[in-house]
Amino acid sequence: MRMLRNLALVAAAAAVASTGVLAQDAGMKKWVQGRGWGWVWGPTDEVGNLNEMTDASRLAALRLATRGKVYDLGLPYDRTSFKWPGHSAGEIISFRSPAGVRAQQDLPFTTPGGGNTGGTAWHSNVIFMNDNVATQIDGLAHITHGPDSHFYNGMKAADWGGDFGLRKADVTTIPPIVARGVLIDVAGFKKVDALPSQYEITVGDLESALASQRVEVTPGTVVLIRTGTARYWGASGSDHARIGEHDSAGIGLRAARWLVEQKGALAVGTDTSGVEYVPPTADDSKAMGGSFNPVHVYLLVEQGVHILEFNNLEALAADRAYEFAYILTTNAIRGTVAGTALRPIALR
Amino acid sequence: MRMLRNLALVAAAAAVASTGVLAQDAGMKKWVQGRGWGWVWGPTDEVGNLNEMTDASRLAALRLATRGKVYDLGLPYDRTSFKWPGHSAGEIISFRSPAGVRAQQDLPFTTPGGGNTGGTAWHSNVIFMNDNVATQIDGLAHITHGPDSHFYNGMKAADWGGDFGLRKADVTTIPPIVARGVLIDVAGFKKVDALPSQYEITVGDLESALASQRVEVTPGTVVLIRTGTARYWGASGSDHARIGEHDSAGIGLRAARWLVEQKGALAVGTDTSGVEYVPPTADDSKAMGGSFNPVHVYLLVEQGVHILEFNNLEALAADRAYEFAYILTTNAIRGTVAGTALRPIALR
Amino acid sequence: MRMLRNLALVAAAAAVASTGVLAQDAGMKKWVQGRGWGWVWGPTDEVGNLNEMTDASRLAALRLATRGKVYDLGLPYDRTSFKWPGHSAGEIISFRSPAGVRAQQDLPFTTPGGGNTGGTAWHSNVIFMNDNVATQIDGLAHITHGPDSHFYNGMKAADWGGDFGLRKADVTTIPPIVARGVLIDVAGFKKVDALPSQYEITVGDLESALASQRVEVTPGTVVLIRTGTARYWGASGSDHARIGEHDSAGIGLRAARWLVEQKGALAVGTDTSGVEYVPPTADDSKAMGGSFNPVHVYLLVEQGVHILEFNNLEALAADRAYEFAYILTTNAIRGTVAGTALRPIALR
Amino acid sequence: MRMLRNLALVAAAAAVASTGVLAQDAGMKKWVQGRGWGWVWGPTDEVGNLNEMTDASRLAALRLATRGKVYDLGLPYDRTSFKWPGHSAGEIISFRSPAGVRAQQDLPFTTPGGGNTGGTAWHSNVIFMNDNVATQIDGLAHITHGPDSHFYNGMKAADWGGDFGLRKADVTTIPPIVARGVLIDVAGFKKVDALPSQYEITVGDLESALASQRVEVTPGTVVLIRTGTARYWGASGSDHARIGEHDSAGIGLRAARWLVEQKGALAVGTDTSGVEYVPPTADDSKAMGGSFNPVHVYLLVEQGVHILEFNNLEALAADRAYEFAYILTTNAIRGTVAGTALRPIALR
Repeated sequence: MRMLRNLALVAAAAAVASTGVLAQDAGMKKWVQGRGWGWVWGPTDEVGNLNEMTDASRLAALRLATRGKVYDLGLPYDRTSFKWPGHSAGEIISFRSPAGVRAQQDLPFTTPGGGNTGGTAWHSNVIFMNDNVATQIDGLAHITHGPDSHFYNGMKAADWGGDFGLRKADVTTIPPIVARGVLIDVAGFKKVDALPSQYEITVGDLESALASQRVEVTPGTVVLIRTGTARYWGASGSDHARIGEHDSAGIGLRAARWLVEQKGALAVGTDTSGVEYVPPTADDSKAMGGSFNPVHVYLLVEQGVHILEFNNLEALAADRAYEFAYILTTNAIRGTVAGTALRPIALR
Repeated sequence: MRMLRNLALVAAAAAVASTGVLAQDAGMKKWVQGRGWGWVWGPTDEVGNLNEMTDASRLAALRLATRGKVYDLGLPYDRTSFKWPGHSAGEIISFRSPAGVRAQQDLPFTTPGGGNTGGTAWHSNVIFMNDNVATQIDGLAHITHGPDSHFYNGMKAADWGGDFGLRKADVTTIPPIVARGVLIDVAGFKKVDALPSQYEITVGDLESALASQRVEVTPGTVVLIRTGTARYWGASGSDHARIGEHDSAGIGLRAARWLVEQKGALAVGTDTSGVEYVPPTADDSKAMGGSFNPVHVYLLVEQGVHILEFNNLEALAADRAYEFAYILTTNAIRGTVAGTALRPIALR
Repeated sequence: MRMLRNLALVAAAAAVASTGVLAQDAGMKKWVQGRGWGWVWGPTDEVGNLNEMTDASRLAALRLATRGKVYDLGLPYDRTSFKWPGHSAGEIISFRSPAGVRAQQDLPFTTPGGGNTGGTAWHSNVIFMNDNVATQIDGLAHITHGPDSHFYNGMKAADWGGDFGLRKADVTTIPPIVARGVLIDVAGFKKVDALPSQYEITVGDLESALASQRVEVTPGTVVLIRTGTARYWGASGSDHARIGEHDSAGIGLRAARWLVEQKGALAVGTDTSGVEYVPPTADDSKAMGGSFNPVHVYLLVEQGVHILEFNNLEALAADRAYEFAYILTTNAIRGTVAGTALRPIALR
Repeated sequence: MRMLRNLALVAAAAAVASTGVLAQDAGMKKWVQGRGWGWVWGPTDEVGNLNEMTDASRLAALRLATRGKVYDLGLPYDRTSFKWPGHSAGEIISFRSPAGVRAQQDLPFTTPGGGNTGGTAWHSNVIFMNDNVATQIDGLAHITHGPDSHFYNGMKAADWGGDFGLRKADVTTIPPIVARGVLIDVAGFKKVDALPSQYEITVGDLESALASQRVEVTPGTVVLIRTGTARYWGASGSDHARIGEHDSAGIGLRAARWLVEQKGALAVGTDTSGVEYVPPTADDSKAMGGSFNPVHVYLLVEQGVHILEFNNLEALAADRAYEFAYILTTNAIRGTVAGTALRPIALR
């Protein structure tokens, strides 16, 4: 992988010489057109290209909201929700209930004798779930590659793993994201309910859809690509057959490179569980050194670009809301590698 | 409780007649000065006073951000974090790891023979935690009161509970909150690191601090009150002794009523686990029909006003940032009664 | 249900008058042929017919072991194991590991600086599982019936449930079982690998198989009936299709009554997840007042007879080991209603 | 550690030459007096000295039961139970309940419309717990030692760990234990309720107590040593202060060696969480290469002798029941390294 990276950087440098936009022209600190980012933020960086956000970029993004309308991009999660097969099972379990509190009498202040004559009680629940389900942001420690199992910035699993999750680049290091957002409605452009199984979204698809929408991806934009898969989510994502059929559509390495290296996308998301089409072609797999998830390796490991998954883009598409202020904050659970069951919002 | 409510409403009506501000004057739909809200949103409502939010109110709130600076109000959570004694234990557990994925070989596409010659792998974690820990918003189904264990709008635990959490007023019904936010730095005003144990924050404290800050609580404002407790949270809230000492400071029923009935607070929060001082005085307990958490009963059950707990207000206080755009989205986990381990933000 | 019971008792009393064996003749304390047991052990009893065990009965059972050979009747459980659809998901998760302990350094005495210069470390795991999986004994609080949700001895869910499991008749009240065991190899008698889907094992099947095996069920015997299903369990029960096909075979109400009322079975088990054939015929369902699990209601609720599920009977059958000392101890986990992932043994 | 082992073996061989009992004299297959066992069962063995059990040894053990009386050695576990600080938190959570099943209606066959007119329902629970709590047997993969983190038989954590527990020497490889058991009531001999904090039980203590009890440890005997700690367990082990005070008493390396090398103990247990006194003296720690748990390293890693923890020995002591048939079966949960919350029994 290290060799692959170096070759890529040489190629990138050449590209910049001829066609590059100077990063500062786009208000970017480190982005170079034709190269994107990479491990450019210093040897101890855990944040990746989200370092590009500034007070000015946030303020500009907020100014895109001119009406105050809010779109909730989160998909509701429960024990029946569709998920990638490598993740753990989930249960939401009623933990305390008024009847149970009264029966248990384990906390004296909740009993009538303890003064609780009015019978105040409470509901709470145990959440047992994976840190990568429903609407999520993949953190930079999520994916590793190579025999040394390194992740972004060359950090290695053996050095930074632990019994209680990751000790570097966990979600607590992901800053709140306040940025310009753009929807690319590929399913809408193609006039289909949802893209077919395993469909690779091409650069041409993205360019055509953007042209039709009359909106551009400018450096620092969060890009959300609609396959239509989320229309089958419903109340909890329990229709695994329908979701699973369309969930395998997504971008390939070419589109990912174009978004990052030519357009400067701040983050890349879809309404599927994995952003990229699966399984990858042999070419895409080989281009990332033999990987079952080459786009993940490219974005997270190589470029330090976060991935946004299972976003509910249906209402945005229905309103032809193609440009907006995008706001996302992750959970603050130390050790976890993804914000999970989140509700990003789009503001117009 | 029903009787208490009715008496309260009669008293409120009288108060309105003499001193009330008309709700529409303040841009509010249902709020009445001297009365607040209550069960005024229709018999099937699960949202409470967050129904007050409109495109206009959100846009006005966003316009408070004039510099683009963002404050992360979330406190990082892990297995050692301080929490209220009625909640379940928590563990964040490394679930998949590159070494484990290689050893387990349970998913063929992750093996070299399955094409993964480059050794892509991943980290993910199991989250086992309560839905009421770290920085949180208490949903309207969280607290029940009375022999019938009713919560907001008269919904009863026996009717709307279940094995997988609540079937009404769970967090998926809490809309994204985008509103004007105000910090009331009581600890700062009193020039203490943190308020003493069991200290009741009075109406006078709030008024004095607000006057000193030259900021007002207007109807529809999210109010965050600083006790200083969060300064002892550190990396994970593991100093239970220090946190526990100050965590029992908070508002009483009088301050809660003033905020809601006189000022129209959209939500009420602190930097403690429970907003209210504990244990309550006999008067406060009795005023809510004999309760160990009278302010919770008043705000959540009676008024439909959400409670915001364990907010990190340290950076806001240090910057004297008393007015801001407040944005919070909960998790989207069906059945849970509180957004948990969240990261609300303040934007200026 | 109460009416059903009373009718049953009247019928039983009549039957005893004409055909009954006196309980004391069979060394039984309370069993009456033609009636079985029922709620005969006093109003506070949580043990049911396991009260029949005595020093003498245990000693007699142990004397059946004449060679010292042991059979492990437990089926190994993991995250992939087949289970009844009403139970929760399961994960066994590596919690502490030598690499993780070294990385985490959360316990000073495990570090080199804390004196652990030799690098002692440990493995431990988190078990997240249902209390009703793999080889199990259903406790008397497991199944409820009727609008009042009563279980054995008229105890009601509303009275004895709680947030942390059951407060009556949990597994800690199940005494160690040391008793005569008999295998009835119905699949072997019928010369099939496993009984067909939904097959109802009849009284005739049991009688014929017993005759062929030249062994009798005497009062106080633990009866284990082989359908052959467990032959498809393998290393972890992951072949859901094969197991599921045969798992629906089992006894019906007639066979259950014969075993308990005519033969005095101390407990009734199979190598399936639920002992009884499913779905029940309308007759069997109606006979228990309209139930999807009439045999469970009959055995657990009505008779106080424990149910033994998913026993591995393959080795016993291969050895034609039809009579043995049976020993089972449950877990000692308060609140749980079934011993789970157990390993009962047969000794010869 | 390898060097330590080799030195130990040389010393052992010398000892055997002069004082050894031939293993076959004691009915043992591989035990050598003065040496014990070690990694003598072949390079792929996962069972350790439990390989010594035979039909004959089991039969002889069962014959010790002459009255049929059974003693339950299990301590009841719940969320409040005392445990070693390196283990995970535990919760037993009501998962399904009759009220919840009726509310949820997630399984059609449980509804009236699905035929369940009688309202059959069920209780089940989620168990979230560590595999090393309450009455337990430490498996041979539990403890590792050395920079290579090897466990019994030189198996290494890096080779045999995984995401779902251990892939070698997990509890499913522990055979049912049916053996002669002996109680050594050290607390009783010393006429104390419980041994003092950190007390090291000496060889002299064991010899004197045995002499007073007129019972011997013969090769192949399961040895249970009473400190008296379990008398403070009560219903659930929630009195951490009292239990914790006495829990640090236990055997040291000298007593462990004597039991294994001179007496041929098949397994070694106590009524404490860790068998050995803690913290160890510098001498004991150094003798095992610098370890915070030298007796664990000696027994589990070096000798392949299982450890039995938190056994309830109170009733045995009260009855002066010093010799008995001991029976223990572990859970059958793949990947776990200890049988947990077990109920071993003693039969007389």
